[in-house]
Amino acid sequence: MKKALAFDIGGTKIFSTIIDESGKIIAEIEKFSTPKTIEEIKALLRNEISKHENEVDIIAIATAGAVNNENNAVIGSTGNLVEGYYTIDFQSLSGKKVFLENDANAAAWAEYKIGASKGTSVSVMLTLGTGVGGGIIINDRLLKGKSGAAGEMHFKMYPDKRRKCTCGSWDCFEIYTSGKGLKLDAEEAFNNKDVTTYDVIEGVKNNDQKMIEVFNRWQNDIINGIIGLANIFDPDCFVLSGSMAQFVDVKKVEEQVNSQIVTAPTSMRLATAGNYAGMIGAALLALGGA
Amino acid sequence: MKKALAFDIGGTKIFSTIIDESGKIIAEIEKFSTPKTIEEIKALLRNEISKHENEVDIIAIATAGAVNNENNAVIGSTGNLVEGYYTIDFQSLSGKKVFLENDANAAAWAEYKIGASKGTSVSVMLTLGTGVGGGIIINDRLLKGKSGAAGEMHFKMYPDKRRKCTCGSWDCFEIYTSGKGLKLDAEEAFNNKDVTTYDVIEGVKNNDQKMIEVFNRWQNDIINGIIGLANIFDPDCFVLSGSMAQFVDVKKVEEQVNSQIVTAPTSMRLATAGNYAGMIGAALLALGGA
Repeated sequence: MKKALAFDIGGTKIFSTIIDESGKIIAEIEKFSTPKTIEEIKALLRNEISKHENEVDIIAIATAGAVNNENNAVIGSTGNLVEGYYTIDFQSLSGKKVFLENDANAAAWAEYKIGASKGTSVSVMLTLGTGVGGGIIINDRLLKGKSGAAGEMHFKMYPDKRRKCTCGSWDCFEIYTSGKGLKLDAEEAFNNKDVTTYDVIEGVKNNDQKMIEVFNRWQNDIINGIIGLANIFDPDCFVLSGSMAQFVDVKKVEEQVNSQIVTAPTSMRLATAGNYAGMIGAALLALGGA
Repeated sequence: MKKALAFDIGGTKIFSTIIDESGKIIAEIEKFSTPKTIEEIKALLRNEISKHENEVDIIAIATAGAVNNENNAVIGSTGNLVEGYYTIDFQSLSGKKVFLENDANAAAWAEYKIGASKGTSVSVMLTLGTGVGGGIIINDRLLKGKSGAAGEMHFKMYPDKRRKCTCGSWDCFEIYTSGKGLKLDAEEAFNNKDVTTYDVIEGVKNNDQKMIEVFNRWQNDIINGIIGLANIFDPDCFVLSGSMAQFVDVKKVEEQVNSQIVTAPTSMRLATAGNYAGMIGAALLALGGA
């Protein structure tokens, strides 16, 4: 069975392991803090690759940032990664072929191949974490766009400049429905900069009515955004992943969405491919597996 | 050269002509008022088909309403069409093959094959008329979704129920950026139910500052919606069509959109395939032409 040496390169952590073409993780997961310079990132990757490349058929990297349609270069740095990240020539780090995919796209592919959206042909994955990522599958292919950057969940929730988004524009879905969005909802509700996402989640557990109101605002923004995406894509399902997804009332979101869309009913599912879905998806894309 | 007998079936008018596989209209355009019952619609179509089907290879129909992915049945009626429209068995109307496509999708295909988006592989067409239609092309295929209903421009401009949309939900892009949306903007600005879209357009021409403000709100909503679509699809271009598109400051919209998106710059174009783009697109899809 063919195997890939897989990496997941994020703003704070880098993970690595070996994954076979069925999507199974067959080695220990290695974890590193993401170095602060591109030279150190390259050295780290080169070191890991030299240790394992003889055991595998291909190197598969899930990375933050948009990846071009040939899956061989990062074409835009995100705020979370070191400056100049997009100048790294990943292919130069190995004698084996190096395959790259955006981390959200790769995770969506893992869900499609072995996880929550398996068996569907049109699906939208939303990764609700510190930020919000998106990976969209249409007719069994990843939606990449002209330059590889499609699936950015930066569509506006208001037209009149209320909350600045991390992307530089205003009022994007991401800045309302991320963990940060929930914190900002709470800050606005209590006029208190120190309230945290954790405070809201704890408050909801303790049946604190004000915290429940804040949480419901956040969840309603998720519902409102998904309604638009459902009408645009007419997907079989949505897959919710990321650290914030566990707090979403999936049944309620599904009911609310289906009661307001003009397209046929869709389904709402929690991700099942796990925390390493990015590496699994990159490996499956690279190997053509599962 | 192969030929299609083409129809465009809308809520108020039905058009028909013959179109060859290069997309050229090669017969007179016939025009009818849309009958009020499905029996009369069927009789009209049967009559036209019987007159011309011997001259053509296929029947190609651009229709209001969602069309299934096999392009052989309307699966949802729109408010504009007679009740039961979706029960019509279009194939039963001719001995030749009958091909159906949603009118906005068909028009987007005409723009892609012979019009404004020719040569691109990812494009979003917005038809700004009484309502707003959408047709999306990804990797040289129409985006249809699981049931054929994708491309509905019903994503929310506000999360807090300000303006009821024709779709039954609230605050959709359509109800702000259609001709009706412009009228509603003016009604709200002047607290006057009698002000019309025409009044606003005339006011702008006459440099009436209040009317210019109303118009700018409408155009800004178009910009805001397109920003989201650009981040989601990363398209080569947007094509603006429909009766309201002529009033849009295309250059300004393009500049504003490109200054606020995280994906690579896109271009804004007016449609060039003409008023019969729906029939042309349906014919080209049916014939596999141009």
